[in-house]
Amino acid sequence: MNDAYDTLLSQLRKLPGLGFRSAERIAIQLLTDKEGLGDALVQALQEAQLKLSACGDCGHICEGPLCTICQNPARQSTSLCLVESVLDLLAIERSGTWKGRYHVLFGKLSPIHGVLPEHLNFASLVERVERDSVEEIIFALSNDIESNATCHYIQDLLSNRPNIRFTQVGFGLPSGGGVTFADASTLKSAFESRRSYD
Amino acid sequence: MNDAYDTLLSQLRKLPGLGFRSAERIAIQLLTDKEGLGDALVQALQEAQLKLSACGDCGHICEGPLCTICQNPARQSTSLCLVESVLDLLAIERSGTWKGRYHVLFGKLSPIHGVLPEHLNFASLVERVERDSVEEIIFALSNDIESNATCHYIQDLLSNRPNIRFTQVGFGLPSGGGVTFADASTLKSAFESRRSYD
Repeated sequence: MNDAYDTLLSQLRKLPGLGFRSAERIAIQLLTDKEGLGDALVQALQEAQLKLSACGDCGHICEGPLCTICQNPARQSTSLCLVESVLDLLAIERSGTWKGRYHVLFGKLSPIHGVLPEHLNFASLVERVERDSVEEIIFALSNDIESNATCHYIQDLLSNRPNIRFTQVGFGLPSGGGVTFADASTLKSAFESRRSYD
Repeated sequence: MNDAYDTLLSQLRKLPGLGFRSAERIAIQLLTDKEGLGDALVQALQEAQLKLSACGDCGHICEGPLCTICQNPARQSTSLCLVESVLDLLAIERSGTWKGRYHVLFGKLSPIHGVLPEHLNFASLVERVERDSVEEIIFALSNDIESNATCHYIQDLLSNRPNIRFTQVGFGLPSGGGVTFADASTLKSAFESRRSYD
């Protein structure tokens, strides 16, 4: 329709989860809304970019040098839950299931997509493990080959600390999801991780 | 998590089609992306807001006073297709089905939601009808009561011009959509608009 419109549309399409139709709907709304939706969004985004940064310890988004989780003495600093992204961290926090700390890797190893060890948050992981005498590392990554390679890499990276216990979150059928709806790979994981029923 | 983050999240949730999860995903992507996704979006939006405005004739988004459709002498100025939104206009344009011009109403009458005649793009419609001696008005609004009320209102508004032919786009089963998947209201429309089969 127009250069400025096309640029806006293509920028919106880069956002996760937005296809052509949803990006178009948002672009038109931003441009035709009379209540200043666009300005408010720009302001909110600029302020968030200005105030927020990555926690120096775990990588979570926070105001100031450390996030509220890493500042909280009640959260065990000797147990680290490794996640791929801040989104994963937020999901686990919402479930209220984990009382230790986190470490966000910002991805997983995938040479085929150009993601190498130097692109992930490994350096600060090694530092934390030394500094806080970490005893347990929980891998809460996805159930796929790249995550598996990432876990192996981290185990090698920390092989000079034999006291660390490495664990991995369980894989299998999700709550409320039956066998019919599970894909082949999930069913394979579920069978591999079967345990005695009592 | 944080005021600046919460504000960004709530602004994103005001965008059409974004629920909590999708807004969260976009917020985290905007804040953690290393390629300047957030800055590029702000720039694109600000430039689009600066350059684009509503076409003085039809209300479509455009650069300059008139949109490319209203400037195009090949598009009949005596036939106006009335739509609720710019999105609807874009969808019809993509289908290549309409060769006349448009008039965007920016909503439909809905007193219960506080949408009264003065909130819709009626004044410029009356002007155009006079100026261009409009002969046909096609209602391409949704298939619901409010659209119906809006069509009646416009007919009354233009009752001093008895030569205008008012038509309405067909209602019924969508292409590729069978009877099984149609809701009761669509089936009612489809039966009401049945015609001889030859």
